[in-house]
Amino acid sequence: MALAGTGVFAEIIDGEVYRYYADGEWRSSASGKSVAIVNPTTRQTQYRVQACTQEEVNKVMEAAKVAQKAWARTPLWKRAELLHKAAAILKEHKAPIAECLVKEIAKPAKDAVTEVVRSGDLVSYTAEEGVRILGEGKLLVSDSFPGNERNKYCLSSKIPLGVVLAIPPFNYPVNLAVSKIGPALIAGNALVLKPPTQVSLLHSFTGGDTGIAISKKAGMVPLQMELGGKDACIVLEDADLDLVAANIVKGAFSYSGQRCTAVKVVLIMESVADAVVQKVNAKLAKLKVGPPEDNSDITPVVTESSANFIEGLVMDAKEKGATFCQEYRREGNLIWPLLLDHVRPDMRIAWEEPFGPVLPVIRINSAEEGIHHCNASNFGLQGCIFTRDINKAILISDAMETGTVQINSAPARGPDHFPFQGLKDSGIGSQGITNSINMMTKVKSTVINLPSPSYTMG
Amino acid sequence: MALAGTGVFAEIIDGEVYRYYADGEWRSSASGKSVAIVNPTTRQTQYRVQACTQEEVNKVMEAAKVAQKAWARTPLWKRAELLHKAAAILKEHKAPIAECLVKEIAKPAKDAVTEVVRSGDLVSYTAEEGVRILGEGKLLVSDSFPGNERNKYCLSSKIPLGVVLAIPPFNYPVNLAVSKIGPALIAGNALVLKPPTQVSLLHSFTGGDTGIAISKKAGMVPLQMELGGKDACIVLEDADLDLVAANIVKGAFSYSGQRCTAVKVVLIMESVADAVVQKVNAKLAKLKVGPPEDNSDITPVVTESSANFIEGLVMDAKEKGATFCQEYRREGNLIWPLLLDHVRPDMRIAWEEPFGPVLPVIRINSAEEGIHHCNASNFGLQGCIFTRDINKAILISDAMETGTVQINSAPARGPDHFPFQGLKDSGIGSQGITNSINMMTKVKSTVINLPSPSYTMG
Amino acid sequence: MALAGTGVFAEIIDGEVYRYYADGEWRSSASGKSVAIVNPTTRQTQYRVQACTQEEVNKVMEAAKVAQKAWARTPLWKRAELLHKAAAILKEHKAPIAECLVKEIAKPAKDAVTEVVRSGDLVSYTAEEGVRILGEGKLLVSDSFPGNERNKYCLSSKIPLGVVLAIPPFNYPVNLAVSKIGPALIAGNALVLKPPTQVSLLHSFTGGDTGIAISKKAGMVPLQMELGGKDACIVLEDADLDLVAANIVKGAFSYSGQRCTAVKVVLIMESVADAVVQKVNAKLAKLKVGPPEDNSDITPVVTESSANFIEGLVMDAKEKGATFCQEYRREGNLIWPLLLDHVRPDMRIAWEEPFGPVLPVIRINSAEEGIHHCNASNFGLQGCIFTRDINKAILISDAMETGTVQINSAPARGPDHFPFQGLKDSGIGSQGITNSINMMTKVKSTVINLPSPSYTMG
Amino acid sequence: MALAGTGVFAEIIDGEVYRYYADGEWRSSASGKSVAIVNPTTRQTQYRVQACTQEEVNKVMEAAKVAQKAWARTPLWKRAELLHKAAAILKEHKAPIAECLVKEIAKPAKDAVTEVVRSGDLVSYTAEEGVRILGEGKLLVSDSFPGNERNKYCLSSKIPLGVVLAIPPFNYPVNLAVSKIGPALIAGNALVLKPPTQVSLLHSFTGGDTGIAISKKAGMVPLQMELGGKDACIVLEDADLDLVAANIVKGAFSYSGQRCTAVKVVLIMESVADAVVQKVNAKLAKLKVGPPEDNSDITPVVTESSANFIEGLVMDAKEKGATFCQEYRREGNLIWPLLLDHVRPDMRIAWEEPFGPVLPVIRINSAEEGIHHCNASNFGLQGCIFTRDINKAILISDAMETGTVQINSAPARGPDHFPFQGLKDSGIGSQGITNSINMMTKVKSTVINLPSPSYTMG
Repeated sequence: MALAGTGVFAEIIDGEVYRYYADGEWRSSASGKSVAIVNPTTRQTQYRVQACTQEEVNKVMEAAKVAQKAWARTPLWKRAELLHKAAAILKEHKAPIAECLVKEIAKPAKDAVTEVVRSGDLVSYTAEEGVRILGEGKLLVSDSFPGNERNKYCLSSKIPLGVVLAIPPFNYPVNLAVSKIGPALIAGNALVLKPPTQVSLLHSFTGGDTGIAISKKAGMVPLQMELGGKDACIVLEDADLDLVAANIVKGAFSYSGQRCTAVKVVLIMESVADAVVQKVNAKLAKLKVGPPEDNSDITPVVTESSANFIEGLVMDAKEKGATFCQEYRREGNLIWPLLLDHVRPDMRIAWEEPFGPVLPVIRINSAEEGIHHCNASNFGLQGCIFTRDINKAILISDAMETGTVQINSAPARGPDHFPFQGLKDSGIGSQGITNSINMMTKVKSTVINLPSPSYTMG
Repeated sequence: MALAGTGVFAEIIDGEVYRYYADGEWRSSASGKSVAIVNPTTRQTQYRVQACTQEEVNKVMEAAKVAQKAWARTPLWKRAELLHKAAAILKEHKAPIAECLVKEIAKPAKDAVTEVVRSGDLVSYTAEEGVRILGEGKLLVSDSFPGNERNKYCLSSKIPLGVVLAIPPFNYPVNLAVSKIGPALIAGNALVLKPPTQVSLLHSFTGGDTGIAISKKAGMVPLQMELGGKDACIVLEDADLDLVAANIVKGAFSYSGQRCTAVKVVLIMESVADAVVQKVNAKLAKLKVGPPEDNSDITPVVTESSANFIEGLVMDAKEKGATFCQEYRREGNLIWPLLLDHVRPDMRIAWEEPFGPVLPVIRINSAEEGIHHCNASNFGLQGCIFTRDINKAILISDAMETGTVQINSAPARGPDHFPFQGLKDSGIGSQGITNSINMMTKVKSTVINLPSPSYTMG
Repeated sequence: MALAGTGVFAEIIDGEVYRYYADGEWRSSASGKSVAIVNPTTRQTQYRVQACTQEEVNKVMEAAKVAQKAWARTPLWKRAELLHKAAAILKEHKAPIAECLVKEIAKPAKDAVTEVVRSGDLVSYTAEEGVRILGEGKLLVSDSFPGNERNKYCLSSKIPLGVVLAIPPFNYPVNLAVSKIGPALIAGNALVLKPPTQVSLLHSFTGGDTGIAISKKAGMVPLQMELGGKDACIVLEDADLDLVAANIVKGAFSYSGQRCTAVKVVLIMESVADAVVQKVNAKLAKLKVGPPEDNSDITPVVTESSANFIEGLVMDAKEKGATFCQEYRREGNLIWPLLLDHVRPDMRIAWEEPFGPVLPVIRINSAEEGIHHCNASNFGLQGCIFTRDINKAILISDAMETGTVQINSAPARGPDHFPFQGLKDSGIGSQGITNSINMMTKVKSTVINLPSPSYTMG
Repeated sequence: MALAGTGVFAEIIDGEVYRYYADGEWRSSASGKSVAIVNPTTRQTQYRVQACTQEEVNKVMEAAKVAQKAWARTPLWKRAELLHKAAAILKEHKAPIAECLVKEIAKPAKDAVTEVVRSGDLVSYTAEEGVRILGEGKLLVSDSFPGNERNKYCLSSKIPLGVVLAIPPFNYPVNLAVSKIGPALIAGNALVLKPPTQVSLLHSFTGGDTGIAISKKAGMVPLQMELGGKDACIVLEDADLDLVAANIVKGAFSYSGQRCTAVKVVLIMESVADAVVQKVNAKLAKLKVGPPEDNSDITPVVTESSANFIEGLVMDAKEKGATFCQEYRREGNLIWPLLLDHVRPDMRIAWEEPFGPVLPVIRINSAEEGIHHCNASNFGLQGCIFTRDINKAILISDAMETGTVQINSAPARGPDHFPFQGLKDSGIGSQGITNSINMMTKVKSTVINLPSPSYTMG
């Protein structure tokens, strides 16, 4: 009950069950029911949250609609000031919030703290970025277009969408919540947050199917989604192999591979494959495997069904002849890191996203082969290419059909102001602080029609 | 058969039935079936077009996917050059194309020519605008965000979406086709055009229901829609009443009111209502009513069902006590212009979109009453406010929740480079040449990761 | 000695003489000489500052050149962090800094505090704005231009100019110093600040001659200057006369008229002139005249020679027949507020800038007459137009050849993020936070030349 | 007399002397004097132009001032249309214009035609770019800045400077004229063109001294200058040596080295120097040396004094021990191409700009040595770096203090929409179509002050 009972968090719990927040206060549901949050490490119930009724959800939406009108009339600098205050609170209370991440999703303790601090920075940066984006519109004149005199001045500005619904995923529950909350609020929207419940979301959003299903229900509503990925790491012969090995281990095994932008398949030139596999194996041997409280590198994956899914991919690869560089080992939700060499396109793991600490290596004979495999995926989140050659680096990154290509580094969402987007089944719209704020706005224009042409002189 | 048989149009007809164009040539459907296009004036079949099979439609999509990859690798200036050529062809052949508009949708002959010429200008402007939008990306550095050194350079650019499906409405079939074709092509997309069939679309897109239905089917695909509107014209006491009357007549009755941005309800201060109604009536009396070939101001509406729908709204208003400023008169699809005074909110015509030459006038006692009526609509396309007062003009346009507000002029889509968008059920996304091109792109970024920080010096 | 002796200011004084800061520390000049700063109210020496030798000045420049290279390699967020810290220090020490303004330039005590606080806000805003401006460059591709394939990627960014020399004027010594220091530093420049010495600058910069002289010496160096102004206030017949009177008094007499953007001539339609003059006179009668320590509205002007110059303009007008609405009264540097009605173009005060609490009123018979007088001035800083009519407001502001035109408000430099610029002899370049930062940068580009065309796909 | 006598050029000659154009017509000077234009190949007078009186020059300026006001009130699309027409005329008459370049400045015939055609493209591109730049301003709101409500809307736009004086250099007299004329005109300025006279300009602008002298006279006037350069070509060990050799020959010897962006010093790693020198020599041996009419690669330099200056640099290097890879040969103004190897920093040619077909090679032992030499120059126009390594390419280009760095290609001004600027003594301001247009504008803003805050809703 790390968060509960004192200070700013005094009112957030009702007996054993965490409250939900609506219309200015923390509330208990009239349903009398709650949902259990299971600790992935202990596999015991760690927390309980309110199970809201449909009516309560509707009320939340209504309250948001009302609140939005007033919020949209709040000066930009004041909106920013409030977000700066929220960022400060977040950073000040990093310890109890991080503890929740450790218990709820088995995030290594240190990484959990980092996530909270980085989230505070993100909120502050968003506040200032939003002041600029919302504070500047365009002034257009009519005489740009053939046949027109300058008698119409069009004032176009970005205005809030209204009420925004945000559903962050389980793996960065704080960071990927504020990366929606911040942009929505600074842009003058009200926001309804549906926090992730680990179990129900894992095989949905990460696989993208839920995202697509939601988009079909959404109708004529602007969508921004970042779903799963199968980020490829293409390694050419001239690459810095130590850099490659370090990035593969960090890129594929951080937070046990439960990252959208994790390296999920290595496509490596045959001639350097043995050397890199050896270097990676050496590094994997040094990873600490265990509970998140000990700052282990590899911690239990988020649910048992997730662990089972990963195991299914691994066993399929084994049957079809992949080489296991390590012995496969699992205890409960905890899976030891595993590199699978000599993976071939007929294995599921060549295409599916394990979201766990297991990584397939596919050996290639040309850069084109690597590009082809990358582009044959349904996903298109990120990819990376390791080469020292400036021409190859640019030509291959141009050819890889993913939202982002990293040259000589593992895929990564940050820094948070960079554009971040998934193509194909990996998402819609572009995030990153600037783009996220823009996605939270729509255009409105006012046209001043003059009785005669007027050109401003000076 | 204006278009058929000679010159650039030599191959477009097969006997009596117009062909469809796919994968580089004009084709006849294997279905052996055709769809009749009925002339709204004669109510006889004017043209026949191919009824394609599902398989043929699929092939069109496949061919577009293949073509897109090569087109996206065509230099920007060359894409522009081809669009300029297309614009020239359009303008050169304005006569036969305009004739189609006269016969298919009863557009007054002169307006039909204007539409084609303006469309050529739009294509040329789009070409040049697209060169700029597609040719310029962003260079971002990592050290903007707290904790980062400058060791990452992010190159972000706008790239084509892929294959775009465009469905223009019947009322500006050329202009609203090229306003999608131009942006899609210059941005490097392939485009599949489903031209409007008058009957099937009228009560759908203009009412917005079809648009919303399509958006639900679309799933995770970017949408840009411009649907119906109920554009309000708010008239204050200090307005220039001659200007008001002229804009009401032009704004509400051009092309017999079959325009998304037509003035569809007048909200006028009681004290000036009589004067304006009188001025409008005087102007309506001078309008020429008849077939489009004669350059009549008021021509038959597009279908009989459309005429029936309009009549339904008019009769409902009559029963509920609206004042008819003219006698209601209809012959076939031809409806004489009608101003309905003293309309009240309980009448359907106060809220529904007739898409015909009938206009309700609601008398108000305050600007707030006008704003309230405008904002109570499900639509949010455009609106206009007539006042000489600079403060009222800005405050009221800020308060009107529509995509555009025109100060002292009737709503209008042009000039075509201005932003143009519908809020609420009136659409999603923003059009206008610049915005339309942007909507036809997505973001891709390449990050160059350096081994050590690098700041460019000079 | 408000600032000296304690805390962050401990080292800034050496006996009776304030030190100068260079290369990281506060220094006394080897000249052994000092310059007296005379209090405009007491006309006694208030402070003494170092009179530096040419060699010392050269060393300052050399140290700045060296420091700049390292500073330009400091991460953007870190530069911003340091500026935020400076802003906090400024606001924390507002009292002693404001006291200097009271003693050095007779600024009313409350206004002096406001200036310091606003300056802190400006520095913070500048820091965040600069992160955005410096952190984002352009990515251009070669195939925009006819004849080119896409084989060249141009990365263009904004880089620091190097060492910047800033010379703020006396009237807002803190605000107009930080409005240069902030933009220069966040952009990665080193800055050498030459603070204003009241006497030597008054009849120079404010008159613009010194500015022009400096620009001739500067050679091929980018210049940004804001010099004097003769801001006209055009009042039409339909204006809100109370609003006009309030803005004239505030606009012309704040800080005794010693503001570049003060209203310096009223051009008013004959029919409303009597009414406005009467309202202004009523307000002037209520102004408090006296020393700045008492928060007087009107305080002594900055130097005796300034007072003499003002008196010269006033007397010239008197001789030529202007009507004095108040008795002319002066004690030392203190001049009582004076409205001069019926001023004509042959009087010096119709064209020259008094920089004191005296305001000429010229009666006009048409808006065109007002525009003509405004545009006949050598100055072109700001101007304002009072009218309720939206068309006149826009047409007249378009016709006034000044850097900014205020509709229905007195001229003003703020809010500080708005563009601010003088045309003609009023300056060069555009200020305002965003523009000032841009002026502190130059462009550098890197072109990646590829061996074959490459189009980024996705 | 290629141009004279017929068609559009009918009126441009008066007897033997070319007229000047002012206030709408071609005129003969009242001075009765003319200036001879000497053909560099024949060293005989080729043409004569009017020697205008001071009074005539003044009249030109006055006429420009008057014309500008009307031109600035011409719709943007119309300005563009006129520039498109001018571009077409230029391209249509490429032959006689190119002939002038052959005779006046000994430009190889084919290159002369290319220059004219490229100039037409530039004008057209400029027209369209200008429509966008001038047609779009900013709309800013007051509540971005702390303490403000949203009651001020600032409309900021780019307006013409007024009258622009342009002085293009001799070496690209058409291209570098239209690169100023186009931007000036589309932005609404009037322009006075002072065409280059070869002799008087060569040792001035290219050396930069005249530029600096002019800037001192200019006073408070915005300046854009592109002066001389000493563009370095840094060659690393891993570079593609054939690419290097081809770029050195093209980069240094095109138009006999009389280009601002010519490669003017090669800084090459010792280990690959012999190989590259050998490859360059092989290519130089194939260059055709002779008169421009024969499309020779190397043609006479522009004046005899220029040839003497080049010879001075060459002889200085010889005396100090440089290795001549070819025999030094000169006939009149014609100098045979010469590579000088083993050049050292004590030779003048290591730092000075020959503006002729002679190229020094300095052997270096580290990239840092190359960067250091590049940055020690007073010039900072462009530079280039040849390496395959992406990290070195970026790090070194960041370190080179020049306006542009080309990676793996010789310096070049084009494509013409790329930014182009010289640092240090190489210039001020940034050119390239977009930047040039921006430099031809200034900012003007209009602030609408509302009586109460207003936030636009939707």
